[in-house]
Amino acid sequence: MAPFVVPEEADLVTKKWVYLFREGDRTMRDLLGGKGAGVAEMTKAGLPVPPGFTITTEACNEYYKQPGGGFPDGLWDQVLEALKDVEQQTGKKFGDPSNPLLVSVRSGAKFSMPGMMDTVLNLGLNDETLQGIITSTGNPRFGYDALRRFIQMFGKIVLEIDPAKFEHILDQKKQQVGAKVDTDLTAEDLRDVAERFKGVVKVETGKDFPTDPYEQLRLAITAVFRSWNNPRAIAYRNFNKIPHDLGTAVNVQTMVFGNMGADSGTGVAFTRDPKTGERALFGEYLLNAQGEDVVAGIRTPQPISLMAQELPEVYKQFLGYAEMLEKHYRDMQDLEFTVERGKLYMLQTRSGKRSAAAAVKIAVDMVDEGLITKSEAVQRVEPVQLEQLLFRRIDPSASVTVIARGLNASPGAATGKAIFDADKAAELGKTEAVILVRPETNPDDVHGMIPAQGILTARGGATSHAAVVARGLGKPCIAGCEEITIDMEARTLSANGYLVKEGDLITVNGTTGEVILGAVPMLEGEITPDMQKILDWADEIRRLQVWANADYPRDAQVARARGAQGIGLCRTEHMFFEEDRLPIVREMILAKSLEARKEALAKLLPIQKEDFKGILKAMDGYPVVIRLLDPPLHEFLPRYDELLVETTELRVRGDNPAELEEKEKLLKVVEQMREANPMLGLRGCRLGLMFDGVNQMQVRAILSAALECKAEGLDPHPEIMIPLVGHVNELKAVYDQVTAEAKQVMKEEGIEIHYKFGTMIETPRGALTADELAKYAEFFSFGTNDLTQMTFGFSRDDAEGKFLLQYVERKLLPTNPFQVLDRNGVGKLMRTAVELGKRTRSDIEIGICGEHGGEPSSVEFCHLIGLKYVSCSPYRVPIARLAAAQAAAAGAERDR
Amino acid sequence: MAPFVVPEEADLVTKKWVYLFREGDRTMRDLLGGKGAGVAEMTKAGLPVPPGFTITTEACNEYYKQPGGGFPDGLWDQVLEALKDVEQQTGKKFGDPSNPLLVSVRSGAKFSMPGMMDTVLNLGLNDETLQGIITSTGNPRFGYDALRRFIQMFGKIVLEIDPAKFEHILDQKKQQVGAKVDTDLTAEDLRDVAERFKGVVKVETGKDFPTDPYEQLRLAITAVFRSWNNPRAIAYRNFNKIPHDLGTAVNVQTMVFGNMGADSGTGVAFTRDPKTGERALFGEYLLNAQGEDVVAGIRTPQPISLMAQELPEVYKQFLGYAEMLEKHYRDMQDLEFTVERGKLYMLQTRSGKRSAAAAVKIAVDMVDEGLITKSEAVQRVEPVQLEQLLFRRIDPSASVTVIARGLNASPGAATGKAIFDADKAAELGKTEAVILVRPETNPDDVHGMIPAQGILTARGGATSHAAVVARGLGKPCIAGCEEITIDMEARTLSANGYLVKEGDLITVNGTTGEVILGAVPMLEGEITPDMQKILDWADEIRRLQVWANADYPRDAQVARARGAQGIGLCRTEHMFFEEDRLPIVREMILAKSLEARKEALAKLLPIQKEDFKGILKAMDGYPVVIRLLDPPLHEFLPRYDELLVETTELRVRGDNPAELEEKEKLLKVVEQMREANPMLGLRGCRLGLMFDGVNQMQVRAILSAALECKAEGLDPHPEIMIPLVGHVNELKAVYDQVTAEAKQVMKEEGIEIHYKFGTMIETPRGALTADELAKYAEFFSFGTNDLTQMTFGFSRDDAEGKFLLQYVERKLLPTNPFQVLDRNGVGKLMRTAVELGKRTRSDIEIGICGEHGGEPSSVEFCHLIGLKYVSCSPYRVPIARLAAAQAAAAGAERDR
Repeated sequence: MAPFVVPEEADLVTKKWVYLFREGDRTMRDLLGGKGAGVAEMTKAGLPVPPGFTITTEACNEYYKQPGGGFPDGLWDQVLEALKDVEQQTGKKFGDPSNPLLVSVRSGAKFSMPGMMDTVLNLGLNDETLQGIITSTGNPRFGYDALRRFIQMFGKIVLEIDPAKFEHILDQKKQQVGAKVDTDLTAEDLRDVAERFKGVVKVETGKDFPTDPYEQLRLAITAVFRSWNNPRAIAYRNFNKIPHDLGTAVNVQTMVFGNMGADSGTGVAFTRDPKTGERALFGEYLLNAQGEDVVAGIRTPQPISLMAQELPEVYKQFLGYAEMLEKHYRDMQDLEFTVERGKLYMLQTRSGKRSAAAAVKIAVDMVDEGLITKSEAVQRVEPVQLEQLLFRRIDPSASVTVIARGLNASPGAATGKAIFDADKAAELGKTEAVILVRPETNPDDVHGMIPAQGILTARGGATSHAAVVARGLGKPCIAGCEEITIDMEARTLSANGYLVKEGDLITVNGTTGEVILGAVPMLEGEITPDMQKILDWADEIRRLQVWANADYPRDAQVARARGAQGIGLCRTEHMFFEEDRLPIVREMILAKSLEARKEALAKLLPIQKEDFKGILKAMDGYPVVIRLLDPPLHEFLPRYDELLVETTELRVRGDNPAELEEKEKLLKVVEQMREANPMLGLRGCRLGLMFDGVNQMQVRAILSAALECKAEGLDPHPEIMIPLVGHVNELKAVYDQVTAEAKQVMKEEGIEIHYKFGTMIETPRGALTADELAKYAEFFSFGTNDLTQMTFGFSRDDAEGKFLLQYVERKLLPTNPFQVLDRNGVGKLMRTAVELGKRTRSDIEIGICGEHGGEPSSVEFCHLIGLKYVSCSPYRVPIARLAAAQAAAAGAERDR
Repeated sequence: MAPFVVPEEADLVTKKWVYLFREGDRTMRDLLGGKGAGVAEMTKAGLPVPPGFTITTEACNEYYKQPGGGFPDGLWDQVLEALKDVEQQTGKKFGDPSNPLLVSVRSGAKFSMPGMMDTVLNLGLNDETLQGIITSTGNPRFGYDALRRFIQMFGKIVLEIDPAKFEHILDQKKQQVGAKVDTDLTAEDLRDVAERFKGVVKVETGKDFPTDPYEQLRLAITAVFRSWNNPRAIAYRNFNKIPHDLGTAVNVQTMVFGNMGADSGTGVAFTRDPKTGERALFGEYLLNAQGEDVVAGIRTPQPISLMAQELPEVYKQFLGYAEMLEKHYRDMQDLEFTVERGKLYMLQTRSGKRSAAAAVKIAVDMVDEGLITKSEAVQRVEPVQLEQLLFRRIDPSASVTVIARGLNASPGAATGKAIFDADKAAELGKTEAVILVRPETNPDDVHGMIPAQGILTARGGATSHAAVVARGLGKPCIAGCEEITIDMEARTLSANGYLVKEGDLITVNGTTGEVILGAVPMLEGEITPDMQKILDWADEIRRLQVWANADYPRDAQVARARGAQGIGLCRTEHMFFEEDRLPIVREMILAKSLEARKEALAKLLPIQKEDFKGILKAMDGYPVVIRLLDPPLHEFLPRYDELLVETTELRVRGDNPAELEEKEKLLKVVEQMREANPMLGLRGCRLGLMFDGVNQMQVRAILSAALECKAEGLDPHPEIMIPLVGHVNELKAVYDQVTAEAKQVMKEEGIEIHYKFGTMIETPRGALTADELAKYAEFFSFGTNDLTQMTFGFSRDDAEGKFLLQYVERKLLPTNPFQVLDRNGVGKLMRTAVELGKRTRSDIEIGICGEHGGEPSSVEFCHLIGLKYVSCSPYRVPIARLAAAQAAAAGAERDR
């Protein structure tokens, strides 16, 4: 009944849970968190840092392993010991009324995380130590202010009392004495406030405010540990894909005070402008204030440049430290400091967060300055930042009215008239900007999606038809926006009390999933010269090639312009969905004889040939992988349930027997083609094996196109790819079809042309028997969408709407495996396939064409298992180039 | 472009393709085929066998590797050399007019196969050698008869001429001369017939009949090779799961003649009665005849016992050989012999085919006789033979009218009134025998399936709902019988010109898939004392335990009676489908609040508890694995398309707005629950995680039931199994739910009880991460139905109807992987899971509960990878016991 538990390390009691600042350094971020590693490094470098110590992230994780949470053995003893060291350094004593040591307690995870407990200041205060402070500073107002701040923070953060209760008392007091701002309150006023705060604590917690400084410290440390798993922190980690098992460190540091008069102050600064990347100190400070005043917005801080006049010596010193730290860390730093009676203290240094544009500029500048290498520069820009810059986006300074939120299914933003059907969107879209709004889309809607600026659907997941097509088209899309209700009769959309009529302007933000009322100011996406430099450097570093998934010549052109080195997936069925072709495709499917089918196929042949020729031309000199027909055929037919309703209507009305008969016939066919689980049904290579002639037509179209290109002096590299192969016999049978037709075409034309034959690896069995498949396949391409579906047993159409997102939220899955490749399951199959494939054919070409091909973590994995290329949407090619370079650079670092 | 080809062995030219009879022995069946190994062994034992040689199966396989087919290098030379040896032994010469050697050419695969080329006799005859025969026998009639037989056989079999053309000439001649039977024809007549036969050959092939004996021999050998891949042979191998790459051997043997007068004859005999197993020579013979006369039924053979009077010496000699050969082979032998002028020649010995009943009796008798061991006896009965004996079956001697054929979805046979809906079947079934006939079945039909004697559906595969439920109930079922058309309005069934009205008697033979008109005589299935002995011996030998899948106490009782040592799968949802529960289940699904859901669950609790109690009681002392809710919830709701039609009808009619509103509401809910691919959607453990309370109710029901059993002095062993787990976090979350509820129940009741917690392994990811799952799971159970679906990407609902059966027919798959476990793909995942699971938890209990658990080859695989048990339908338990023992015995043999 008991779960199997891995034996714990035997020496838990002797483990080092606490590090003095001087014992750590910058390399210890995992253990000490970002903040802890930063103050340790500054201490080591001899900068003026108030003494203190850090409790490790391991201690936090151990805390959670205790039943109900608890300090691991030895932790408290080590805290007390470290405290003694700090007392020795400062000459003060914790809890000593005559010369009390006060400390701040702050959380500090490896990655900075909003939502977690931030800071408790002035810890160690009680009525006795307060007197010591008042005596030593000679400033009772300062003392009572410190006390009331402490109780307020401790009450809110550690004791979890509604902060409004404290603010209410402060406001009352100010009203009572006619004070406008906090600083107008006297020592007396503040003493009274502090007393009343104690009353709030008593009422809310049923206990007196803890007066024992050690008790205060123990409670504060516990609160930091607990804050690691509060819902906001969890949500943040989920969103940012930060593992939940890192834990947070706790920093305990001697207090210094910026509010001790006109020679004191506090501030924050970036060594460069975090918004633009300009090389100039950027920040804010406040004279005679404590840090929380700045953060809380109680007082308005001043630009840091003013400090040059107000505290010139300190400013100079600070400038020196800033430059030194930037050079030392070789990155833009985010600094916190306090000046206590003319003495500068450094409280924090860390790499500063920056906007996408700043990230690019700083990286490029620092290379020019000789501060970092090109490889480092490439690693300084997050792929997601590149994504922001590449797509059209809403001006961050604009104020907008968000009326609903859905899935951010395809990035970018667009404004247009809301239009509720594809035909109208297709018509109106020729001349005006439209947003196609549908309950969900299907192939019949594609002609309306192409001219639309953006797409909004009420149903469907991040891999629904709408999402996939939109990403392919590089258009913003919000999918599965369940907050909106579409009334197709009234032609309106309503959401959260707002009503949008057809023709009204709306804006979709596909990057965030927000539906916005009306038009809003936009910033255009583009590849700036700095960005181009980063991408060029990335190209020098990466080993993985980046190819693109493109179904049309126009997509191939975009892909090539963005740096694609090949087409990794050209889906022939998307050509079939085009309005002028669908009737012929239906004719082919409904054909009653092989003859009739071949007739329809003959009509499709020249159309497909032209399509392929366009793509081969656009990718002249580069490989183009064309996948033979894949989707279940009923996708090309009218929808079953719509037909059912129409037929039933006609039958009950009884007024049009001729139409009824025709509909019933069609219904019967569609019914026969229906499948319980089409994703696992008659599709993929099964189609060409069951419907003789289809593969042959496609092969003929591909090779005739290539031969024509060759005749025109071009250099086409067609590769023919077979989908959904599960057994080597299937692949062999298609191989025979393809080879025979190819020979025939070349014989007819009298020219030879080289082409490759290969297979997708998208069923688990395909991966498990890759050694057999490699006997026929010259290349593999991982179809990780399907492979993920089958490996998990998740239908993407259903899972994302019905449980998958909840799963991720509830930590039942670390990430959505359709977005981030699941290394432990799907990845294992991929490793197996690579190994087996190479065993049979050492030079086999292996790539990936699932949507993971454009996702940075997945790109890294593809690098790690030795793929030749990743293939992604044309619009994501630059992102993949960057991610591939980062993977290579990280690998090179590991190898060093 | 070229497929990768494994290099051929370099020494092909030096390979030995031909073995003289004296060079082989019984161990060489793979190489020489069954017939070749048999004559070799008899030759070795000194029995009188006409000299000859065997061309190996490898030569046949090599023939197919040549482009368009061709003799491998060296084969013909070796044939000529062997022929010389035969000439020396016989003193005759091939093609020598003065003393010609004539030979027979026969195919001989490892397994006897109807449909392949059988025999060409008298090869080597032409006008010249004929004269030699006539001279040496002094019998022109015999000579001309031999010639016309040779041309006729050669023409038909080697030259592939329609045999009717020859028969027509023979009939004409008989009419012409007024002959009743062939033997009335004179030498002159036969010479004329032979000449006319040559004319037929000339007309049909455009060439003269080949007169060169070597040319005849070369053509005949080629024909044998070719016959290996004729459609009938392929179909036979597919049906009997014989690999297609075995190849056939060719036997060339000196002719002896049974038609040389009253001291000559020919016959076949079994050393025991192949129908009953009685220990007595059983067979037929004919005086003055050639073997083909017997086979062709031209003359009626006599019981072999008559030979004791007609040829007493020879009979005695033959009896001796028969006994000797049975003892030598330690098995019942199928013998062929010819007597030429008083001299007995043995032509063939092989293990004789026998009926299921005979197989059992012979095996048991031979143990009693001390001829074979118990282990050998167990291996002498095919599991499929046991299956025949265990189920009710049509008396093989009855003549029946088959009106259609479908899939043999569940074995056994039954007669009853054809009834077209479940309600009527449920009603009428209480008092009369009914056969439920439906287009397809769904859970709504189960109440009609339970009382029915048998089930017949027009659609759906071998794993459709109807098939699965029928097998579970042990009722015969024919599924996917596409030859029948059901008219639900007229309430008739039509097939191939026959019409069956509702209430007419029909018989379904689920073992063969035949639909039969009216009632037919049946034999009851039973476990006879002999069979019991075999099963007892099997139990002594096998290492694998055999458990059963049972959802109801009645199934558990059947399972236990048939030897099940536990319940490996109790599907709780089947209980949900029962008519009285479905409304409550729907209430639970449609619940708008957690409260409402819990109310419905509370109603289900006592019902489920009683179900579980019944099963635990029936299996007292044995483990019972109960799986928590698994299927997609919409399976419990009304069908979407039916609702859609009803709603549309109401809407168009507009005469019942109240009902319309209600239906529309229901439709909306059903629509929301609909999934594109329900097999990969919200089901399995996902249900209990998304709908809090469901798992808890089921756990409470299981444990309360177990506690009550314990209180009654019983010894219950409940095991709680979680379906469709893909990630360890899912399993952990359910583990937490289960453990908490279990503790609570035991606390409330004040008794402790041991239960196990485990998981199904049915997603590829589950198998790939089994080491992680084993941290929580004390047992694994392979759900190979789902695992096969996901590993191949085959939906069983769709694949079997749409392409899978064609795949098997076309050799795109070796077997149907839903019937026979796919060792190379699914099996690899199973091996991985076993290995990983044991790595984490060495004593983990691992079994299989997919339908493969009752299929002999799959059972063998489960034995090989070290599972603890297989679990199958109660009715298949004896079959699995036998298969498990055979696997163990085969393993012991390999180990020797």
